[in-house]
Amino acid sequence: MALTLSSAAQDLLFREARTANTFTDEPVGDEQVRAIYDLVKYAPTAMNQQPLRVVLVCSPEARERLLGLMAPGNRAKTAAAPLVAVLAADLDFHEELPKVFPHSAGAREMFAENEALRAHSARFNATLQVGYFILGVRAAGLAAGPMAGYDADGIDKEFLDDAHTVLAVVNIGRPGEDAWFDRLPRLTYEEVVTTV
Amino acid sequence: MALTLSSAAQDLLFREARTANTFTDEPVGDEQVRAIYDLVKYAPTAMNQQPLRVVLVCSPEARERLLGLMAPGNRAKTAAAPLVAVLAADLDFHEELPKVFPHSAGAREMFAENEALRAHSARFNATLQVGYFILGVRAAGLAAGPMAGYDADGIDKEFLDDAHTVLAVVNIGRPGEDAWFDRLPRLTYEEVVTTV
Repeated sequence: MALTLSSAAQDLLFREARTANTFTDEPVGDEQVRAIYDLVKYAPTAMNQQPLRVVLVCSPEARERLLGLMAPGNRAKTAAAPLVAVLAADLDFHEELPKVFPHSAGAREMFAENEALRAHSARFNATLQVGYFILGVRAAGLAAGPMAGYDADGIDKEFLDDAHTVLAVVNIGRPGEDAWFDRLPRLTYEEVVTTV
Repeated sequence: MALTLSSAAQDLLFREARTANTFTDEPVGDEQVRAIYDLVKYAPTAMNQQPLRVVLVCSPEARERLLGLMAPGNRAKTAAAPLVAVLAADLDFHEELPKVFPHSAGAREMFAENEALRAHSARFNATLQVGYFILGVRAAGLAAGPMAGYDADGIDKEFLDDAHTVLAVVNIGRPGEDAWFDRLPRLTYEEVVTTV
């Protein structure tokens, strides 16, 4: 047994969890999103940057605006999902560094002076956190349906301010009927891992 | 109880796991890396792209070459770690799409014709997989020490071919003495999540 994580947890997070395309009507409450966040917030980012920001699209008016910005193939499932989250990177995460990385006096200034470095770091670390968030949704017994097909500039303009940029839109809920296609093939260890 | 994942698994992956700066001498074997990969390979990527590639830096000669490319502050821990992995994105992941996303006949060609889209997609999805991999190391009862401080062009040139680019270098092993600093503060739910 090479893994410490229980087989049930392996199944819940990785082996039996799937990207859902349909959902039941069961609502996803604030307390569930809070529990997910309060778990995944501990996963690591460089210099504890934590640039991920989350916009929960709850009102019918906001959902309608979002649907108009999704790729046609994503609209029906985004309309039907109990909850939709816009996951974004905070390009001004450095303003939080004096609080979240307090022992490094120059960290805020280093990023303040280098916008390209800051944008790269925000995107990279917030994308790590998107991965953690997807597994956190599964830890709550829910299915995540992450999507990349949308008008990114439109979402930035409609749902975020100038200091934030969208990374993914995620449908969240209990899987419904015919929620997924057959599992697609994974690359083998030999195809992915080499040794030098 | 808003989460389905057991409290022990929450601790193992998120709450008690920490980014380690020191390690014991206990080696990390191939079979552990294989078990980690065979778990995390199931986590989702857009169009099942799976662009993550892993180079295990095992020989003393390769470790020495890598140390010369790490930022000074990362050299001692990278020298002492039982295993060091270079995590990279395959910028030519589209060549695998006929196998891993077989029902979409035009997917390979879409990425073949648009190098900028391909590079963006490779980096984004491989970075999601870096997040999954870090949690997979923890699922094996090991500590991960992900690092961003290195000469990226140097690692690309020394350890990868033209179609791959480094995303992170990760030390892997059992935590040693004084393996970590105090837990740094996390942003609150209210600071990260908004509702529209």
